[in-house]
Amino acid sequence: MSASDPQLIPRAGRVRADLDELARLVEDDRPGWTRRAFSEPYREQREFMLGKMRGIGLEARIDPAGNVIGVLPGRNRSLPPLMTGSHTDTVHGGGRYDGIVGVLGALETARLFSEQGIQLERDLIVIDFYGEEANNFGVSCVGSRSISGRLLAEHLDRVDADTGISLGETMLRRGLDPDRAVRGAWRPGSLHGYVELHIEQGPKLERSGSKIGVVTAIAGIERLLARFSGRPDHAGTMPMEERRDALIAAAEAILLVEREGCGAPIHGVSTTGRIESSPGSFNVVPGDAAIWAEMRSVDAEWLDGAKGRLARDIAELAAKRGVDTAIEWLNDQEPVHAARSVQDRIAGAADALGVSWESIPSGAGHDAAHLADLGPMGMVFIPSVGGRSHVPEEFTEMEDVELGIGVLAHTLLGMDRERR
Amino acid sequence: MSASDPQLIPRAGRVRADLDELARLVEDDRPGWTRRAFSEPYREQREFMLGKMRGIGLEARIDPAGNVIGVLPGRNRSLPPLMTGSHTDTVHGGGRYDGIVGVLGALETARLFSEQGIQLERDLIVIDFYGEEANNFGVSCVGSRSISGRLLAEHLDRVDADTGISLGETMLRRGLDPDRAVRGAWRPGSLHGYVELHIEQGPKLERSGSKIGVVTAIAGIERLLARFSGRPDHAGTMPMEERRDALIAAAEAILLVEREGCGAPIHGVSTTGRIESSPGSFNVVPGDAAIWAEMRSVDAEWLDGAKGRLARDIAELAAKRGVDTAIEWLNDQEPVHAARSVQDRIAGAADALGVSWESIPSGAGHDAAHLADLGPMGMVFIPSVGGRSHVPEEFTEMEDVELGIGVLAHTLLGMDRERR
Repeated sequence: MSASDPQLIPRAGRVRADLDELARLVEDDRPGWTRRAFSEPYREQREFMLGKMRGIGLEARIDPAGNVIGVLPGRNRSLPPLMTGSHTDTVHGGGRYDGIVGVLGALETARLFSEQGIQLERDLIVIDFYGEEANNFGVSCVGSRSISGRLLAEHLDRVDADTGISLGETMLRRGLDPDRAVRGAWRPGSLHGYVELHIEQGPKLERSGSKIGVVTAIAGIERLLARFSGRPDHAGTMPMEERRDALIAAAEAILLVEREGCGAPIHGVSTTGRIESSPGSFNVVPGDAAIWAEMRSVDAEWLDGAKGRLARDIAELAAKRGVDTAIEWLNDQEPVHAARSVQDRIAGAADALGVSWESIPSGAGHDAAHLADLGPMGMVFIPSVGGRSHVPEEFTEMEDVELGIGVLAHTLLGMDRERR
Repeated sequence: MSASDPQLIPRAGRVRADLDELARLVEDDRPGWTRRAFSEPYREQREFMLGKMRGIGLEARIDPAGNVIGVLPGRNRSLPPLMTGSHTDTVHGGGRYDGIVGVLGALETARLFSEQGIQLERDLIVIDFYGEEANNFGVSCVGSRSISGRLLAEHLDRVDADTGISLGETMLRRGLDPDRAVRGAWRPGSLHGYVELHIEQGPKLERSGSKIGVVTAIAGIERLLARFSGRPDHAGTMPMEERRDALIAAAEAILLVEREGCGAPIHGVSTTGRIESSPGSFNVVPGDAAIWAEMRSVDAEWLDGAKGRLARDIAELAAKRGVDTAIEWLNDQEPVHAARSVQDRIAGAADALGVSWESIPSGAGHDAAHLADLGPMGMVFIPSVGGRSHVPEEFTEMEDVELGIGVLAHTLLGMDRERR
């Protein structure tokens, strides 16, 4: 069997059917195809996925962190296994593709191996990670953090500001086992490799016409909360030059945040996603304001420099207005590089299948970033129409999904046979 | 009796006592000394004021709009009366002085005339206007609008977005008579004059050391609602140069709003008081944003020009980002000039009492602006410590209150004797 085995052609029809079935398990009172971690439709989806895995003959279970894990037994079960998968939760108002394509692609790959009688040397683990998207507790990648040892006891104590309930309590109420999830780390090096199929979520592949993106690295994320304290004054009576307007200082900070991203030498973006100001009346000079921003890059050095510049410049401009600043940084994620060996394997599989590819950094975070601790990691991107993601309009052509699964299957097949 | 009759010395002790009594009738669950129109403490305060007026011998009543009106009878009751007063409602988190000093000053003036046996030629009306501050229905000066014919049927239909209840229904529930309030306009020219004592609410008198401000005009107010429509995108994957970020367009607009006020040739201020953006996540480029701003000036021509520039520049900058704008202006108040004759009378009274004064425009709106239709209008300002107003820290020295009342009393006495 060659690397471009004609038997390994994914069947788009059944992947489409799986996609449609999942698109029905959504939160009806929210826009788009919302299925957030800890929601009832997400619970139902876990059961559905467990059934799907068992239906194609995988040894399937749900682990203490809520990951749905299916194993296609290999010839030598003592070898470190391969793993592939992604996540099926969505953001509020999200779409039908995002991580879902990666989970269904993993499932289809196992189904192809199984029905074509292709037994791998080693076990192939198909995984649907629990809660990849950031939740109300400010914890993303709950499931992949658990198996990589990055789900910490302090995460369990974090509280949803709306309900006052902790992450740990919420997990318990959903039948998960938070204490075991925290202690559930797999051993570093315990995987032969991890490959994740995912939509690009950006416009680059569509723009260039490449069908496959070979991910070079996953961007690091630095999050900023900048608070501005000025003085509330009557908007009709306080002269312009005597004001300490916190909202104007925040507006200047928003432009500084943008400047950093625009000035990034290689892939770098910066975004102010949220702003608040008070008291919020037409006729009162805002005394307080806050912005929540983030910077992302695959270049840790640039991120560090940009953080420093931004904090300094925001504080300097605000001080000129008599506005005090309190700036907090939260490191959400260090940049993570994909293994060179896996990148080569993905590119080789694409070449063998005659599919165009290019190297591409990932601006979005992924479960894969956490998996890099457990073994060589790589990601296969497929195009997003219009670069749109995390919106109901999120769309990827089914033929591109098919190509992505083909590349994934051939990549795994190739990796299975290599020795480390 | 000369214009500086030594008998007409206000007694700060009893004004202080009235002020303290009012400071107890507040909404306990809100910060500062909050007593908003339509609240229960405000209803109690109306009864309290009615009793106060009757206690000093005024013919007192509450009109259909909720104004508390007391009349000190003059010698010739067929002459057009004089009127003085202000308002006792506050903003959320307001202070103890604002309009309250003007109502208590009017009361003290009538009390002085009464106890000194000074009978005016004409009736003196002491008035506590209903609901001067902007309310949840977007209607300020409910009481003074009613008697000036500017409370309209369409105002009654406006709905509090939080409760879904209309202004008319709310007035009915508070025992007022909205239909009669709308038809309650007094005849133009029906007043011999109107004089209002008020705290400056700004820092100018304190800065210059003048004890009295002779108000030249009350600023006009133009209100702006600018909505920005861009496109929400994944903040990690959409390149900076392809974004249509509505929040950055709003931030640029905030700086443009500030630029207008800073560039005003004479008294002019501009303020962005409120901002919203959505979806409001760390990791999503904001697709929508809106700002609420206002510009104020006593110069109608400048206001017109600034409106045009601002609308054009906001739209142009946003368009460069691919962000659409929808800009609405709401004229809240045209600039209103104080009568030259009343300004002179106030300045003369201050001179006669040996009190320093200066001419000053009012950046804040006042009931007086509506009263100008009914007769010659003027205002007496006294210093605000630190220029602070509409905050719990709002403060005016009691000796300054006393001086203001003295000037008010002598001004009214002088106006009483003049013919038109």
